[in-house]
Formats: sequence, structure tokens, C-alpha cells
Amino acid sequence: MMKESLTIVKVGGAVVEDEAQLSQLLKDFAAIEGRKVLVHGGGRKATKMAERLGIETHMVAGRRITDEAMLEVVTMVYGGLVNKNLVARLQANGINAIGLTGADANVIHSHKRPPVAIDGLSVDFGFVGDVDAVSNDTLAHLIEAGITPVMAPLTHDGEGHILNTNADTIASETAKALAKNYDVTLIFSFEKKGVLSNPDDDNSVIPVITRSLFNQYKADGTISGGMLPKIENALSAVEAGVSRVIITLATAIDGHHGTVIE
Amino acid sequence: MMKESLTIVKVGGAVVEDEAQLSQLLKDFAAIEGRKVLVHGGGRKATKMAERLGIETHMVAGRRITDEAMLEVVTMVYGGLVNKNLVARLQANGINAIGLTGADANVIHSHKRPPVAIDGLSVDFGFVGDVDAVSNDTLAHLIEAGITPVMAPLTHDGEGHILNTNADTIASETAKALAKNYDVTLIFSFEKKGVLSNPDDDNSVIPVITRSLFNQYKADGTISGGMLPKIENALSAVEAGVSRVIITLATAIDGHHGTVIE
Repeated sequence: MMKESLTIVKVGGAVVEDEAQLSQLLKDFAAIEGRKVLVHGGGRKATKMAERLGIETHMVAGRRITDEAMLEVVTMVYGGLVNKNLVARLQANGINAIGLTGADANVIHSHKRPPVAIDGLSVDFGFVGDVDAVSNDTLAHLIEAGITPVMAPLTHDGEGHILNTNADTIASETAKALAKNYDVTLIFSFEKKGVLSNPDDDNSVIPVITRSLFNQYKADGTISGGMLPKIENALSAVEAGVSRVIITLATAIDGHHGTVIE
Repeated sequence: MMKESLTIVKVGGAVVEDEAQLSQLLKDFAAIEGRKVLVHGGGRKATKMAERLGIETHMVAGRRITDEAMLEVVTMVYGGLVNKNLVARLQANGINAIGLTGADANVIHSHKRPPVAIDGLSVDFGFVGDVDAVSNDTLAHLIEAGITPVMAPLTHDGEGHILNTNADTIASETAKALAKNYDVTLIFSFEKKGVLSNPDDDNSVIPVITRSLFNQYKADGTISGGMLPKIENALSAVEAGVSRVIITLATAIDGHHGTVIE
């Protein structure tokens, strides 16, 4: 049976925090035809709010340490401030959005990450959740009712605790789960036009990356550093059933730009 | 056609902010049989958070003046902190809760309150919403899918703005709208066992108040002061189709205690 198509767009904190970029994004997202889901970050706003409250932000390997005070901040900022403003703005753009954390309708169940070894040290990230399950049927039920989920980077453990969860992870786990119901295109908004073959040339976008091309690019050094895990994640989403992952500028989320990973 | 019954419980900020009371409330709410909705406040937590952020709280006639800085606070605290923790805690109590502001799935549309005259002065409450419409069918769709809405005291104007809205109003407007779909019991949690005939006797609960009994109690002075508008609101909900309104202790929301207004 032919599956209906669904587009999942992940936008980072930088986009949702800049009024001009946000306003453009909302128009572009509203213009995407058919079923869709928005996943957002909000890290910079959380860091600023923490600072205003006198709470220090600690990051290890690019990830936030979430103690009880920081959990309160991210719950407020991601689940309240950022999410509800996005929902209200999308409503004004004609999209019947609904804001969701993983706790809402139990859409994403996670468990608290145990301490992990980084550079020989044991790091406890605190109230951070690693995803166990995404309720694809609940999300599909909402989507089929004409509702557009807007997902905050928060999950829950089923024992009453909200957990801070990376927005890229929310996006890829949701895409994988919804691949059971839909032909899913997952779009990651990025600060470049796509994956570049020459980091000094912003127009050197690689149009398509497959597993075998990736191995080749990795071997010859065309792709290296921080792009490696990003593309590895995209490929594993594709291998788990997502039809394609697109890495593109926040201003080009129409599915016709950027690097397609398939 | 016989309508299915639905219980809407409104709890104030004091209950959700005290761990012992909250924990009991969640158990009691979880024990209510059948379809249900929870409406919560959070004013004290908002005031405390505003204070931590150096934002002054101004109240006029018991209502919060909501300027832009305060709107940010209530959006974070009501829509994020209080709502998401309630949802996660209810999930842990076996209730498939979903947190909603009025913007989510457009469940409550409102308009910004114009300045109002109070004691001869023009008072601009700022970003405060007066309810225009509750999407009863959207709420019923969620409820029929086995989901329990948990409603924050926030609405939206359809033009991209979140508006602060009184939780009692959210509860009665939601009850009136859902009376088209269900046989609705609306329970207001209160600091007393019910409406008292003697304010000095906590056990002098009036079991039932109808419009004609209310007129009688008002005339003979049995009911006076702040209870008058509360009961007037309850009676107008009943006159708009709500089956009964119950005013009772937060620890007695089983529908078998307190004052029944019908």
C-alpha cells in the first residue's frame, strides 16, 4: 500500500530566537504541503533564562548538564515559552498546531541516561532522557485529525519526571517511528546550504549521499569531523525506514534544496 | 440520546504548588471514573518566578496585570513548568494526559481585553484574554481517543499572541462548550468544604443551591461577598447546559462532597 507522505522539520534554537528568521520559517513551514511535524530546540533561550535566574550552564561534549534547577528552566523555556509561542504563531499562519512534549499523550517515553564515560571521566548528565519509544499511532491519530504536532525537546520516564532530550534525537526517533505510518522526509535545518564537499565553498553542496557514497567520502576525507556523526545518524534513520533525510538552510526547507541522504 | 458523563476539575495554584496536596490530588483525580479534564492555575508560582526575574507583580481587583515581561513568565510557568509536570505526574498515575493551552489545536480562542473601568479608573490588564470560543469538538475528539486534557490558563487570539486567562473562566467556558457533547459535572476545588451557611462553622455546608435558593440566600444574607459572583458564575454555567457545578475541598473531588449547584 502506498503510504501518505509526511514532512518532519527540525529547527534549532538560533532560528526560533531571531524574529526575522522565525517569521520566515513559520511562512515556509506553513507552505509545506500535506502532513507535517515541527521539532524545535531552544538551547540559547534556556541558557539566557538560566543566567537571568542565576543558574550556571554546564556543557560537556556539547550537551547540557541538567540538574534540578536547569530541568525547571528547560521545562519552562522549551515546553512553555518557545513551544507555546511557536504554536500560537503557527495558528496565525493557518496551521492547526498542537504543542507536545514527550509526556503529552505519552508520545515519547525515555529513561534517565546513566553516567557515561567521556575522555576517561564519568559524566552524569542529570535529568537527560534517552528515548525508548515514540507512540507513532498517537501522533498519526493527531495528524489524521488535521493537527500539526510541534515537538519540544523534552520527554518523560513514565514515573512522573520530565527529561531534557536532544532535539535532533527527538526528530530522528520520531521520523523512524512515523516511518511505520508514512513516507517520511526528515529535514534538518542547518547553518550551511547542505553538506559541503569543500568547507571553504558554501556552494559546494553534495546533492546526494548514500551509504556507499558516505563510505567513499569518509575514506577520501571529503567528509570529516562533526559532519560524520550527523550523516551517520541520517543514514541510520534511512536504514530504519525514513525515506530521505535532507540537510539544508533554515530558509530552504521546501524539500528541493540541500543534501539528500537516502 | 443519553450523553456520556464528563467530569471537569479545576484546581488552584495553591494545590499544585504543595507537594503533599498535589500528590493526593493526582491520585484523587486519577480515581475519578470515566472521561475527565483537569484545569489548573499557577498564580503563586508565576509571582515567585517573576520575583526571581526582578519583574514586579501588579494585581487589580484580584487579577494580574500582564505586560510583555509578565506574559513571558506566565507562558513559561503555566504552559511549561506547571502544565508539563502535571502531565508527567498524571502519566505516572496511569492517566494518558495531554497538556493544552488555548493555542494548542486552537482549543480556546480569545481576544485581548480592552481597558475596563474599575472604581472610576481605566485599567488596562495588558495581555489578558477574554474567551470567544472553545472548540468542544476538538476536545471531544481527544477525549474519545482516551486522552485527558490538562488545561493551562492561557489562550490565544488567532493572530499569534498567547493571552493570560483566568483558570476559573477556562473551566466554566470549557464546561459550557463540552455540555454540547457530554453530561458535564464541573468541580471547583475550594479552601472550604463547600458554600457555608455560617462562615464560622466549617461544617455548615449548604448541600444544594438552585437559582431560587440562591435568590433566597442572597436576600436573607446567608450568602454574601466574594461567594456571590462565584455562585452566579456556577448558576450561569448550569443555565448554559452544564449538568451540575460542585464547590468542594481539593481533597474531596469525587463528586460526592461539597455544595452542588444545579
